[in-house]
Amino acid sequence: MMDTILNLGINETVVETLSAKSGNPRWAWDCYRRFIQMYSDVVMGVGKEYFEVLIARMKEKRGVKLDTELTAADLQELSTEFKAEYKAKLGVDFPSDPTEQLVGAVMAVFRSWNNDRAIAYRRMNDIPGDWGTAVNIMEMVFGNMGDDCGTGVAFSRDPATGENKLYGEFLMNAQGEDVVAGIRTPQTIDQLRETNPGAYEQFAQVAHNLEKHYKDLQDMEFTIEHGKLFMLQCRNGKRSAFAALKIAVDMVEEGLCTKGEALLKIEPNQLNSLLHPQFDPAALRDAVPVANGLAASPGAACGGVFFTSEAARDNAKNGPVLLVRNETTTEDIEGMAASQGILTATGGRTSHAAVVARGMGTCCVSGCAAIRINEAERYLTVNGQRVNEGEFMSIDGSTGNVYVGRIPTVDATVSGDFATIMQWADEIRSLKVRTNADTPKDAAKAVELGAEGIGLTRTEHMFFDLDRIPVMRRMILSDTEEQRREALAKLLPMQQGDFEGIYKAMEGRSVTIRLLDPPLHEFLPTTEEDMELLAKDMGKSLEEIKDRCRALHETNPMMGHRGCRLPVTYPEIAEMQATAIIKAALAVRKECGYDIVPEIMIPLVCEVKELAYVKNIVKTVADKLIAESGDNMKYMVGTMIEIPRAALMADKIAEEAEFFSFGTNDLTQMTFGFSRDDAGKFLPSYYSKNIFEQDPFEKLDQSGVGQLVEMAARKGRATRSDIHLGICGEHGGEPSSVEFCHKVGLDYVSCSPFRVPIARLAAAQAQVRFPR
Amino acid sequence: MMDTILNLGINETVVETLSAKSGNPRWAWDCYRRFIQMYSDVVMGVGKEYFEVLIARMKEKRGVKLDTELTAADLQELSTEFKAEYKAKLGVDFPSDPTEQLVGAVMAVFRSWNNDRAIAYRRMNDIPGDWGTAVNIMEMVFGNMGDDCGTGVAFSRDPATGENKLYGEFLMNAQGEDVVAGIRTPQTIDQLRETNPGAYEQFAQVAHNLEKHYKDLQDMEFTIEHGKLFMLQCRNGKRSAFAALKIAVDMVEEGLCTKGEALLKIEPNQLNSLLHPQFDPAALRDAVPVANGLAASPGAACGGVFFTSEAARDNAKNGPVLLVRNETTTEDIEGMAASQGILTATGGRTSHAAVVARGMGTCCVSGCAAIRINEAERYLTVNGQRVNEGEFMSIDGSTGNVYVGRIPTVDATVSGDFATIMQWADEIRSLKVRTNADTPKDAAKAVELGAEGIGLTRTEHMFFDLDRIPVMRRMILSDTEEQRREALAKLLPMQQGDFEGIYKAMEGRSVTIRLLDPPLHEFLPTTEEDMELLAKDMGKSLEEIKDRCRALHETNPMMGHRGCRLPVTYPEIAEMQATAIIKAALAVRKECGYDIVPEIMIPLVCEVKELAYVKNIVKTVADKLIAESGDNMKYMVGTMIEIPRAALMADKIAEEAEFFSFGTNDLTQMTFGFSRDDAGKFLPSYYSKNIFEQDPFEKLDQSGVGQLVEMAARKGRATRSDIHLGICGEHGGEPSSVEFCHKVGLDYVSCSPFRVPIARLAAAQAQVRFPR
Repeated sequence: MMDTILNLGINETVVETLSAKSGNPRWAWDCYRRFIQMYSDVVMGVGKEYFEVLIARMKEKRGVKLDTELTAADLQELSTEFKAEYKAKLGVDFPSDPTEQLVGAVMAVFRSWNNDRAIAYRRMNDIPGDWGTAVNIMEMVFGNMGDDCGTGVAFSRDPATGENKLYGEFLMNAQGEDVVAGIRTPQTIDQLRETNPGAYEQFAQVAHNLEKHYKDLQDMEFTIEHGKLFMLQCRNGKRSAFAALKIAVDMVEEGLCTKGEALLKIEPNQLNSLLHPQFDPAALRDAVPVANGLAASPGAACGGVFFTSEAARDNAKNGPVLLVRNETTTEDIEGMAASQGILTATGGRTSHAAVVARGMGTCCVSGCAAIRINEAERYLTVNGQRVNEGEFMSIDGSTGNVYVGRIPTVDATVSGDFATIMQWADEIRSLKVRTNADTPKDAAKAVELGAEGIGLTRTEHMFFDLDRIPVMRRMILSDTEEQRREALAKLLPMQQGDFEGIYKAMEGRSVTIRLLDPPLHEFLPTTEEDMELLAKDMGKSLEEIKDRCRALHETNPMMGHRGCRLPVTYPEIAEMQATAIIKAALAVRKECGYDIVPEIMIPLVCEVKELAYVKNIVKTVADKLIAESGDNMKYMVGTMIEIPRAALMADKIAEEAEFFSFGTNDLTQMTFGFSRDDAGKFLPSYYSKNIFEQDPFEKLDQSGVGQLVEMAARKGRATRSDIHLGICGEHGGEPSSVEFCHKVGLDYVSCSPFRVPIARLAAAQAQVRFPR
Repeated sequence: MMDTILNLGINETVVETLSAKSGNPRWAWDCYRRFIQMYSDVVMGVGKEYFEVLIARMKEKRGVKLDTELTAADLQELSTEFKAEYKAKLGVDFPSDPTEQLVGAVMAVFRSWNNDRAIAYRRMNDIPGDWGTAVNIMEMVFGNMGDDCGTGVAFSRDPATGENKLYGEFLMNAQGEDVVAGIRTPQTIDQLRETNPGAYEQFAQVAHNLEKHYKDLQDMEFTIEHGKLFMLQCRNGKRSAFAALKIAVDMVEEGLCTKGEALLKIEPNQLNSLLHPQFDPAALRDAVPVANGLAASPGAACGGVFFTSEAARDNAKNGPVLLVRNETTTEDIEGMAASQGILTATGGRTSHAAVVARGMGTCCVSGCAAIRINEAERYLTVNGQRVNEGEFMSIDGSTGNVYVGRIPTVDATVSGDFATIMQWADEIRSLKVRTNADTPKDAAKAVELGAEGIGLTRTEHMFFDLDRIPVMRRMILSDTEEQRREALAKLLPMQQGDFEGIYKAMEGRSVTIRLLDPPLHEFLPTTEEDMELLAKDMGKSLEEIKDRCRALHETNPMMGHRGCRLPVTYPEIAEMQATAIIKAALAVRKECGYDIVPEIMIPLVCEVKELAYVKNIVKTVADKLIAESGDNMKYMVGTMIEIPRAALMADKIAEEAEFFSFGTNDLTQMTFGFSRDDAGKFLPSYYSKNIFEQDPFEKLDQSGVGQLVEMAARKGRATRSDIHLGICGEHGGEPSSVEFCHKVGLDYVSCSPFRVPIARLAAAQAQVRFPR
């Protein structure tokens, strides 16, 4: 988590020795003042800025502009001032004992594991908090001992494009912090070949060896001390989604790794950026960039501008936002995650903003120097134009162009390396991927993105259309079964039409349709005007309508009269829906010749007799319609497992259910006793107090909810060995949850259309890691 | 279920034979017409009344008054008329084939298993529906062949008083239906001794033998055919609670059975009626109920009706009152406590009114839909009758009957046989019995009824007192921690006083106190006046108060910001409560010398880290206070297991919890996904459609929720072998649930004070049935 390098074990005595041995007292004193500054900041939490003031004052006093112009004596004087500042801030002397310095630094690393930024980072990257961290202590080498010294940061391939050539920056006579600080402008790694061909060749060879060893893109830091190359660290490099795909494909072609190993290099969530909108090329042609920065992370974004992480986070609820900062720090993580794009005024392509944005798959333009931010008064100016907080800008992370105003976006195309990777994923994975889709349009999109079927069609959203909701309301507020049947008869052709559209879009692939799920009062009017309209329509008084709406109110609607509890009280609702499903399937089979086998899903079951009751309603309708049609169509009836008791009783429930689909949203709510609508009030305290590391609604809680999923899968199979098992909660498109589903042996995951490629890749990775 | 005896295998040919053989054609034709009538009714569902009309018409035609005055010819004619009536009703001929008659009758018995009455009966008596029923086919004997014949029904002891003497009725020259039909007046069984001493002696001997064999009170039917005694059936007899105790005690004293066997003869729930005031039986004989609701909390009460908590409280000084509400809320506590009985128009047996009333030992009839309350004009109407505020009504919480006017009551007595039975139960049982009590008064009552400790003290009810609720509200609506601490400091001495009272009442017995559990908005004002008062009190505007109240609103409060989620966000609340508990315990130890070991219970835990966080708050406070006191008092910190995830993670949670208390109310809600407040809308359909046989909030769902209880007990013990396990949901006082708790090895059950004797008996019965 903390990769800062301190020259530990230094004090005035050591400085004297170093001066003498190196014959370079300026260097020695510079090391010392850097150490005091960094130790104070990183270990003791005294901000760097206090020391920067002292440096600036010294440069003014000496009449110089650059740090490097300060002499050994100046730097020695600065060390003394720094130590005085330290004592003023902390009330104790700066430690001169190397052991104390070492222990202090080590402790700081361990402490850093539990700071807020680290916790937020772990939550985003699914790293368990109980792993803990480790400390490496290494001998110091120096890039600032003269012009035959230097230091740099480089990637073994281009992390933005994936191109197979060294990519990075370096500075001669400098330490690592100078490269990233942005005060001196670094040179590209290509220039090192000219400046110092020996070191360059050596570095290129090492980079190649490291890549071969780790079988992945390497992000490396190095120092050259008097012409000799030292490698400080290497790690698998963060990269853009585009680069991730290219590198994975290239490495297989280069024979560096297998297809399976290549797939593991790609963070599934990164695919997101490739799937998300780009600027509409037509609109873009007319757009004139107001400035240009570095193309730090590809993709395009537009949104209201905000100048702090908090403001970006808070306003992201209301619409797309761009986070605009001079440069970002680790403290901006949350705002960055909430933003459509990130724009910085300073910082290179290896700046914090650029690296993190690429990791997130978020569009980023960095180092756009034309931007002037007035954070206090909440506006920016860019080449004479003023943009206030919340006003729109657009940025293109692939070109670095920055625009004032809104540029419309279009969908991405997914071919080339993307298609290759998806093809490999499909070859490897054993877990099927379906989609959640309620409309023919969503269904078609999902098929395009590789969905093998529909795992969940919700039938309720269809009733919110303007021409349907009045009929739905009449149905709900009916006094008698007869009235209810009359309204249902009007809804039937609409539903049948919905399902025909979906069956056609899916071209014979499996489609699971869920019977009406939400509590009926969700469909009721909430405004007085709507109530009056309904009253008129139904020939009732406004008071009557209000009374009925009040009577349908529930204290805890999530656990109220919904799901299969509706057809238990009003069987005619399930009858209508089963009729619509079967008639639609028969019609499309006849019209298009697809071999459709409808899968009818009964939600919110907690007891096998409940399922048997509703299943009987469905079967009675279905068998009659099929017999009348002369078609020998098969169909299946199954259930959601979304109530804890359903998981506990899965062996019994499987006697009636031909398939299970885990509704992990509701299952999570009830297993935790968390209302999703209300948990926002207390979950932040749970994160800040380290009680939870993950939002259980985002990543499946494998240790708790997972026990129920595993138990239900096992019990279901014990009763019915060929029972079909899937998941249709939102977890179905989240990589760690997909891996869990693979491990417990589900047949498929189902997720929203745009998450289908992510799920395909995650499923393949799971198969590579845990072959089944 | 159906004990009717049909003379199967009879038709005109058989009648002729019987006439000839017996020389008694009148008897033979009477048998036939009875058969037609009964078969039509019981097997085919043609009501008896159609035939009664024909009999009456025949008697009129013949000018006679009694059935017995009709001649053989009359009866033969009646048979013909009966068969015509049968054909008119059903469109087919009355069957004359004995096989058809037999099969029809057998089928009718099997069908009867699933009629509404049978389902309701099973639900009330905890008989599983999948047992099914059986049919006995016996040779017919006749009590109507002349004056040396007869039939009767008798108990081996008096089922009302328990007195050890034969008790019953008989009729000479009659069939069983004549005894119960009420047309002829039967004679007492004593008179048989005079009428037919031989048969009487023989019957008395058989009754004695049967009692000895079955070791229980026998309910017997017999027939005398030409002086010879035939036993038709016997079964263990139903009896009054009073008789149940006396018979059990007597049989042990008579050496008929062991103490354990004797305890099994008593239905634990029957004890209820002995613990509460009852209506004077003489007065009740003349009373006619005006309506019927749910028997929600036993006992009988009469008093003036009042429609608000305040009115009930204020008028209770002047005489007995009944609180009548549509339904009660936590704000009605005071009025409920002041009332002799509670009557509600809506709400089930687990509604707020029912639960609180049972807890208080106050009589309650809930869900009496016939009641219409006009709160504004202070009167109610019930089936056309108007009752003004202050006028008397009477309610019976054991039957659900509601009366207009005053019916005097008599007090309960719990000595004599009751005390003997309880003593035997205590000798035998291994499961401890604690009580749920929030006040010293409840605690003292529970101790009187045999409670061995408190399993649950809720700390929230204490804040609804008029002098406390404003402080509580100030605490909740505080803007800062400082303001909150200020309000909490005012609540501290009040809470401490509450706990001191309870510790004193319990005289050193174990007391488990639960930290604040409900969502905070339950304490907020709901009326504009109360909001204005609060605004004034806090120096805020009415709008501000309204806004804050709105902000605290939750979509699903049951699964919202409550339980241990409160101290996670506001640690100072738990600090105050822990302080009050520890200070109270230290004070009472010092004052009274009791060896108090406080048990502090943290509710709604779903994750061990959450428990650890709150436990740490409690321990920090407690350890400091104990150290300062110089007392070496021990204390325990434990948790409720009431969220499914807590049961699944019980092994982890036991690392921090020194005890578990199963909160089966909430555990049932979340395991089923049933909101208790809303389930009333659909549960009736679940019963009528045979999906559920039991209300899971009344009887613990052993197959589903029980799995979680068993799992948590097992996992908890695996981590901490001496972990203390109890249950404090309402199931703790329900006999079948008590047996389950015994079987899974819990240490105690905790229930409302008036259910303590029931739990003691049920625990002893469980030990007899499943020794551990």
